[in-house]
Amino acid sequence: MPLTADSLNPALRSVEYAVRGELAIKAEQHRVALQKGGEHAQGLPFDRVISSNIGNPQQKGLDQPPLTFVRQIASLMEWPALAELAPGAFPEDVKARAKQLQEEIGSIGAYSHSQGVPLIRQHVADFIAERDGHPSDPSDIFLTAGASAGVSLLLSLLITNPKDGILIPIPQYPLYTATLAALSGAPIAYHLDEARDWETSVPALREALQKASTDGVRPRALVVINPGNPTGSLLSADTMREIVQLCEAHDLVLLADEVYQANLHRPAHAPFVSFKKVVRDLQSRAPLVSFHSLSKGVAGECGRRGGYLECTNVPEDVKALMYKIASVGLCPPVQGQVGIDCLVRPPRAGEPSYALYKAETESIHGDLRERTRKMAARLNALPGVSCVDAPGALYLFPRISLSDSAIKAAEAKGKAPDALYALELLDATGICVVPGSGFGQKEGEWHYRLTCLCPGVDDYVGKLVKFHEDFSKRYP
Amino acid sequence: MPLTADSLNPALRSVEYAVRGELAIKAEQHRVALQKGGEHAQGLPFDRVISSNIGNPQQKGLDQPPLTFVRQIASLMEWPALAELAPGAFPEDVKARAKQLQEEIGSIGAYSHSQGVPLIRQHVADFIAERDGHPSDPSDIFLTAGASAGVSLLLSLLITNPKDGILIPIPQYPLYTATLAALSGAPIAYHLDEARDWETSVPALREALQKASTDGVRPRALVVINPGNPTGSLLSADTMREIVQLCEAHDLVLLADEVYQANLHRPAHAPFVSFKKVVRDLQSRAPLVSFHSLSKGVAGECGRRGGYLECTNVPEDVKALMYKIASVGLCPPVQGQVGIDCLVRPPRAGEPSYALYKAETESIHGDLRERTRKMAARLNALPGVSCVDAPGALYLFPRISLSDSAIKAAEAKGKAPDALYALELLDATGICVVPGSGFGQKEGEWHYRLTCLCPGVDDYVGKLVKFHEDFSKRYP
Repeated sequence: MPLTADSLNPALRSVEYAVRGELAIKAEQHRVALQKGGEHAQGLPFDRVISSNIGNPQQKGLDQPPLTFVRQIASLMEWPALAELAPGAFPEDVKARAKQLQEEIGSIGAYSHSQGVPLIRQHVADFIAERDGHPSDPSDIFLTAGASAGVSLLLSLLITNPKDGILIPIPQYPLYTATLAALSGAPIAYHLDEARDWETSVPALREALQKASTDGVRPRALVVINPGNPTGSLLSADTMREIVQLCEAHDLVLLADEVYQANLHRPAHAPFVSFKKVVRDLQSRAPLVSFHSLSKGVAGECGRRGGYLECTNVPEDVKALMYKIASVGLCPPVQGQVGIDCLVRPPRAGEPSYALYKAETESIHGDLRERTRKMAARLNALPGVSCVDAPGALYLFPRISLSDSAIKAAEAKGKAPDALYALELLDATGICVVPGSGFGQKEGEWHYRLTCLCPGVDDYVGKLVKFHEDFSKRYP
Repeated sequence: MPLTADSLNPALRSVEYAVRGELAIKAEQHRVALQKGGEHAQGLPFDRVISSNIGNPQQKGLDQPPLTFVRQIASLMEWPALAELAPGAFPEDVKARAKQLQEEIGSIGAYSHSQGVPLIRQHVADFIAERDGHPSDPSDIFLTAGASAGVSLLLSLLITNPKDGILIPIPQYPLYTATLAALSGAPIAYHLDEARDWETSVPALREALQKASTDGVRPRALVVINPGNPTGSLLSADTMREIVQLCEAHDLVLLADEVYQANLHRPAHAPFVSFKKVVRDLQSRAPLVSFHSLSKGVAGECGRRGGYLECTNVPEDVKALMYKIASVGLCPPVQGQVGIDCLVRPPRAGEPSYALYKAETESIHGDLRERTRKMAARLNALPGVSCVDAPGALYLFPRISLSDSAIKAAEAKGKAPDALYALELLDATGICVVPGSGFGQKEGEWHYRLTCLCPGVDDYVGKLVKFHEDFSKRYP
């Protein structure tokens, strides 16, 4: 059989991943055209592309600076001789930390243990224990190539046939539906409640379980993203308890995506309450797998591909199977693991690196908080736009009313109406967002997601506002 | 349904991956016991574990040094301020190279293009064009998280049902059977010819195709590992041509695992002849995907997870599908991509880094060549052992005769006879090898694979020899 796209795995062909989909590809084409200049860039009414489609804090044009502490450790791990060659360049605590890691790991060019460097897993466990006030065991921790790799591992284990289902919030980060499509599993949608700031509704969860049962779908796990993506919402303590109890009652594995746990914009929400804490507080037997990442938070080290998962109430033989599958991929990137070590062991007060670390992280938190607030306010002032002022994560998910003429124009082009909106936004302003249809939304509603990472927020939101006004005139 | 191992994906439960299997887990336990010391280490007749189970050149105890050039670039990418803070530490060409990459990539903490940084793909294409004398296009290149991730991507696309088959050499690197088992695809075994230095036999390939046809299995692709793993064999030019013609005639995708292309021990075999060159020389239309890696060769940077694949004669819509699936994983580790840039653009004569780079790489090549030769000679001198003196890669794959009493003892323990041999070797000497049953071998034959990376080869092989003699006495 000749090699054609039609001959390939239909499950993979069916995968949709809007965050890097049509919009992102077109944005890349605009970027290349601007780079080439001259006739290539002719007719483009903007001089740069602004990638608001993905939570990628350090990308060009956003330029959230990396944390100096993280990079000092990383550079010493790459070339330990620097400690002698440039002794004055590194604070003493950085040198001591790098030395300790080098003694444990040896060269970062070697494969590590497939589950991750044992000492780093111990540090992750210490971090979790301190955060939650409950013990954590390094043998329950798997370091991963970003949270995505951990999610993919779990879903691939849980799906055994097309009638195995996973409860997924709508709207959701499309990693979940994409991975599930690749595995030919069944997504069981539960809708978040926009009117209550995107809160998870336990009745909606029960309804979704009921519908699955009617459809002959066997629910295996429940995905919760907290803080939410794309919504930025935060679960209340009551809801978290009810979710854990529901999982225990229905034998569901709770998959807790907590990668934005450090992105909390309001003092009232700190410190972060994890599902691990709730499970242990309740003395629940619900199996839980929690995911965290180096890519978000204040580190924002997406390119390093670092993350971890923690198993709670997961049987030993399940962990052994997870280890076996992880071992086929050999090991997570070791620089990602070193990054996780920095994430879970930031400099403490009194250490030489502390002052700079504190200043850098406070500046990142402050900028994000301010931008989110300001952007939400200006979007909410627009006719036909309403936007929950997100208390967490890196995004806003405004809802937009679209006129019949806009909906018809989209239909004529074979696009979802919010995809038309996003494409015209890109072509008019160079701003790349992701239409709500890429995350899922209620029938007849339209949204888009944009990140709150862009500097120069006045100019940036000004472009959004002007485009919205023009679009509303074009499609009255 | 409660979370138990029995309830999980049976395809994943069936996966076997001997390189990190029972032996490696036991070796890790011994290592931990020795570290703890005291009663934990009591009864262990060795003072260190030697991991010869995996081609991991920089691991502790082997200590192949990283290439200084690669690490200097990497450390500057991590913390660009070092170029100012420690100007004397870096040669000028390193500083210029890092600056160029920084301008292109921005921060290495950002996600890159899902297919890999465009400039680095251009450099890969330049490297391939120079190696083969045929053009290469950056849009045909995908940077990957090691070669494993690329192989996994291709197999996941090609397998659409359990009757889709992939031709796999026996013995083989078990990544192929493990990934195929996870995807519920059909391995179509073809045996390499040990009597002819593990040459690939085209008649054996035809026979395997015939058997697949009888079994109702549809062959989609042919895996060739050249230089071989675990055998270290090298394909002749004639065989390569015949393989390409066979693939074209049978509509097979040729999956060419060429990760050991820089590990050639004999001048007669240099320069490396790639399948890309053969396909283009023949003006063949056979679709080819070639894999390369940062983990082997002289860089040996396994922990960095860097690799690439090149598509030849692959339709555009297939590449678009590959891109979509790659994008769900966001991007390969950016430090792995930077490592690939160093791999394909080593310092050239006249550049400040050249002399050191040349000295370091020649030393690594020389050590590996000498060890391989010496180890093969000493193993061949043992009664009941025969070992092809491998011309390439990092391994030897000696064949061992095992007595009836050894085979019976293994049966009694529910082990393959060569697994018993390897387990007793580990317990007696601390040397961890992988039994031939982990790679596949002819019925009634026994082998093991060991790496040629271990320093102190006299002492090391001395232990192997003494163990073999003791084992032969214990099981006469």
